Amino acid sequence: MAGEVVLLNFWPSLFGLRVRIALAEKGIKYESKEEDLSNKSPLLLEMNPIIKQIPVLIHNGKPVCESLIIVQYIDEVWNDKSPLLPSDPYQRAQARFWADFVDKKVYVASRKVWRPKREEQEEGKKEFLETLKTMEGELGDKPYFGGETFGYVDISLIPFYSWFHAYKVLDNINMEAECPKIIAWAKRCMQKEAVAKTFPDPKKVYEFVAQTRKKYVSA
Amino acid sequence: MAGEVVLLNFWPSLFGLRVRIALAEKGIKYESKEEDLSNKSPLLLEMNPIIKQIPVLIHNGKPVCESLIIVQYIDEVWNDKSPLLPSDPYQRAQARFWADFVDKKVYVASRKVWRPKREEQEEGKKEFLETLKTMEGELGDKPYFGGETFGYVDISLIPFYSWFHAYKVLDNINMEAECPKIIAWAKRCMQKEAVAKTFPDPKKVYEFVAQTRKKYVSA
Repeated sequence: MAGEVVLLNFWPSLFGLRVRIALAEKGIKYESKEEDLSNKSPLLLEMNPIIKQIPVLIHNGKPVCESLIIVQYIDEVWNDKSPLLPSDPYQRAQARFWADFVDKKVYVASRKVWRPKREEQEEGKKEFLETLKTMEGELGDKPYFGGETFGYVDISLIPFYSWFHAYKVLDNINMEAECPKIIAWAKRCMQKEAVAKTFPDPKKVYEFVAQTRKKYVSA
Repeated sequence: MAGEVVLLNFWPSLFGLRVRIALAEKGIKYESKEEDLSNKSPLLLEMNPIIKQIPVLIHNGKPVCESLIIVQYIDEVWNDKSPLLPSDPYQRAQARFWADFVDKKVYVASRKVWRPKREEQEEGKKEFLETLKTMEGELGDKPYFGGETFGYVDISLIPFYSWFHAYKVLDNINMEAECPKIIAWAKRCMQKEAVAKTFPDPKKVYEFVAQTRKKYVSA
C-alpha cells in the first residue's frame, strides 16, 4: 500500500521530474498538483515553509522536501522493487557524491548560461559543458551511472536532457557533438517507461525556457 | 574491525570537524593527515580529483568525499553503535533536510559576513543570524535536533560553534543574546566526549580566521 501520495510540482522543473521518475519507477500512484510559482499555493507554503519550493512529496499528510532527499525517501519506503540506490555503503556514498555533483556543479553551471552579459554566457556554456564532460568521464562505458541498472545518479541527471533542445536552439549548444556518451546514455534512459512517460515535451520546454529567459538574458 | 581509516583534513575546517566528531562518536581509530590547502598533497588530488577539497575519508584505500556523505557512510558502515541518522525513513528525510539546510543556508550566509563591503557584511550578518534562528525554531525545546540523542543534524551544525568566538570578536555578533537556544544546545553538545575532544581551541580558530579574513574584508 502506497498510502496517500501527493506531489506539488511545476511541469518543466528538473527537480520535480526526478521525483516523478522515481515514483514511476516504483509504480506508485499519486496525485500531482501543479503550482503557480508566481503565486504559490497555501498548501505549498504550509508543507514547505522553510524553502517554499517545489517539489514537495506529501505522504499520508506529511511533507518531504528537496528532490534528492525525496528520491532517497521513496527508495527507502518503497523498497520492495526497483532499488534506486546501491545496497553497498561504499557504492551508495559514490552515488550520493555524483548526485550531489549534479546539483552543485552541473545545475549551477547550467544557470550561468543565462547570465546577463554575452561573455558571461560564453563562460557559463563552457563551464556547463565541462561539468557534463566530467559526468561522461564517470559514466565511462557503463550503460548507467550505477552500472547495469538505472538508478539514483541517472535520476538526478536525466531531467536535464529535457532542456537540451532549448539549449540547442537558444544557445547553439550542440550536445550531440560535445557529449556523445551523455546523449547515448540519455537515449538509453528514454527507453525506460518510467522516464519516457514522465518526460515533458522538449518543444514545450523550449517555449517555456525561451519565455522565461527573456527576463534574464540580453539579446 | 574498522580497517584502515585515514582522514585528509585541515584543522579549522567546519566540514572536517563533522567527520572527526562522527568517527569519535563511533569510537573509530584513524590517522589524520593535515593538508596544506595552498599546496594540496598528491594524495588529496588523487583521492578527490573532482572536488579537490578536504575532508576525504580513505577507508581501506578507497576515498569518500563531501562531509555529509562521509558522515552517512560512517553511520552505515559502523552501524553497531551510536546511530547518527534515525532508523525511520521519514525522520531520516527530515534529518537530511536540516543538514542540507545547514550547508545551503547557514554556511552560505556565514560566508557573506566576509564580503568586501561594509553594507554587504551587515546584510550577511543579518542573514546568518536568521538562518541560525530558523535552526533554533527547528530545535525548539528538544535537547538535540533529532530528539533525545545526539545525531546527524547536530553533527552538521555544531562545528560552527567553534567559530562563534571569532564572529564575536571580529564581527561583534553576540550569539548568546541572539540565539540563546543554540548556545544552550551547543554547550550540551560540548559535554559529549566525541565533541569536546575533537573541538579546536576557539582562540586558535579566531587567530586563523582573523589572518584569513585580511584577504577578504576591508577594514
